[in-house]
Amino acid sequence: MRKLGLIAGGGALPVALAGHCRDAGRPFFVIRLRGFADAAMAEFPGAEVGVAELGRVFDTLKREACAAICMAGNVSRPDFSALKPDLRGLKSLPGAVAAARKGDDALLRFLLGEFEREGFAVEGADAVFADLRIGAGALGDYRPGAEHQDDIGLARRVVETLGALDIGQAAVVAGGVVLAVEAQEGTDAMLARCLALPAALRGGEGARLGVLIKWPKSVQDRRIDLPVVGVATVQAAAAAGLAGIIVQADGALALDKPAVRTVADARGLFIVGLPALS
Amino acid sequence: MRKLGLIAGGGALPVALAGHCRDAGRPFFVIRLRGFADAAMAEFPGAEVGVAELGRVFDTLKREACAAICMAGNVSRPDFSALKPDLRGLKSLPGAVAAARKGDDALLRFLLGEFEREGFAVEGADAVFADLRIGAGALGDYRPGAEHQDDIGLARRVVETLGALDIGQAAVVAGGVVLAVEAQEGTDAMLARCLALPAALRGGEGARLGVLIKWPKSVQDRRIDLPVVGVATVQAAAAAGLAGIIVQADGALALDKPAVRTVADARGLFIVGLPALS
Repeated sequence: MRKLGLIAGGGALPVALAGHCRDAGRPFFVIRLRGFADAAMAEFPGAEVGVAELGRVFDTLKREACAAICMAGNVSRPDFSALKPDLRGLKSLPGAVAAARKGDDALLRFLLGEFEREGFAVEGADAVFADLRIGAGALGDYRPGAEHQDDIGLARRVVETLGALDIGQAAVVAGGVVLAVEAQEGTDAMLARCLALPAALRGGEGARLGVLIKWPKSVQDRRIDLPVVGVATVQAAAAAGLAGIIVQADGALALDKPAVRTVADARGLFIVGLPALS
Repeated sequence: MRKLGLIAGGGALPVALAGHCRDAGRPFFVIRLRGFADAAMAEFPGAEVGVAELGRVFDTLKREACAAICMAGNVSRPDFSALKPDLRGLKSLPGAVAAARKGDDALLRFLLGEFEREGFAVEGADAVFADLRIGAGALGDYRPGAEHQDDIGLARRVVETLGALDIGQAAVVAGGVVLAVEAQEGTDAMLARCLALPAALRGGEGARLGVLIKWPKSVQDRRIDLPVVGVATVQAAAAAGLAGIIVQADGALALDKPAVRTVADARGLFIVGLPALS
């Protein structure tokens, strides 16, 4: 298998990918993005590089004979005025700034394009580690009932619309009401604020109501930034009184599928992959 | 002028409307919704009624010879199972519950319909007190520059889309990125969480960036629940580093226009009314 350059932002996804490459015997090299990559990434072969040191990234990956790259993990949008780019990074900066003005997705697509122009193939996290994908149907023991279908239908229309505007990848719908929409704050913050809403709007333990939906943006490149469901997501959805989680089949990742399934079963939540509407 | 029944939920809008009726010599009677109406409402002629006591509301307004009603102020969606409806309220309850499943706007429209079926005319807050309306153009000294036009355009597309799905009436856009979208949590909570975002995404005092937009939902009845801009809104937008506030011309209310204008001028924010896109 071709050697993989893993560009690692924050969170557990890059750790899972590196662990999988090691276990599967795939050669790989990690670019740890300074200030973002998890400390656990230091145990894998790799180098730490600043987010704007594009020249160092390209040179290192070529020296390591990586033929493909995968960008994974969280990287918050940089303060462009505070970046310390190297020469190659400086060359890309105007394009990055212009792309950033068109939204997150445009910025990420610009960066992928820079890697492709340097001759690297680009693999999505789910191409590197196919078992991360949440497929069609129920992941655990629970399934949505007839009483959840209206909320699920509304939730899908909401995220399809949000995605077309590059707003976000998640929303919460309960009892016909859109309780919350995710933009830049992230899923955890969105679920936390659902708890602050009037109790009449929400469900609760024993009378679960509504769904969290996580869905890729229709505008996004599927090779980067697929929505992720982790154990913490399931716990937060349970705490918010929700009945379950809807994802787009093969359009979302589970970080540790057995653990995610176990927690969902224990809390009585369904996790279901549904096809895209269009 | 026909006598007005003012159905008063929470917040300062009902207080402003009652004060205006009194000052303008218009006869009126206040229905103070228990648990919601501001304490200041007790100084006006009126009666306190539970949200589900529809029979008492209709009887009281008829006895007071009110020919029209205006619903104003915040009322959080009730826990229908905990309501104590009177006989007339009981009759409306199934319709209210069914409407609520279709969203906030459907519930409010159902309630307006009940008033109309009882023979009351319905007036919007801006019909009762026309000067509350924010019209076209700049309200204060500041105007958006060329550097704000992209964010304003994106913000308008976002709220028009949100409104068509009955999601909410506000969003924050800065530097080409949708920072936050309002659903059930309210504008104050949405602006507060913008402050928690990485500094690179936001503006700040001296380098203001982005806009708060408040826009009526395209699905809503304009006689209820027009978005409101108050002094607190301007202060929160300023604290979030935003450059200004966009509203739909004649589709948003300012609670105390001179005070709103004064604060916006003092903090250096624009407030501008723009026409609907469609």
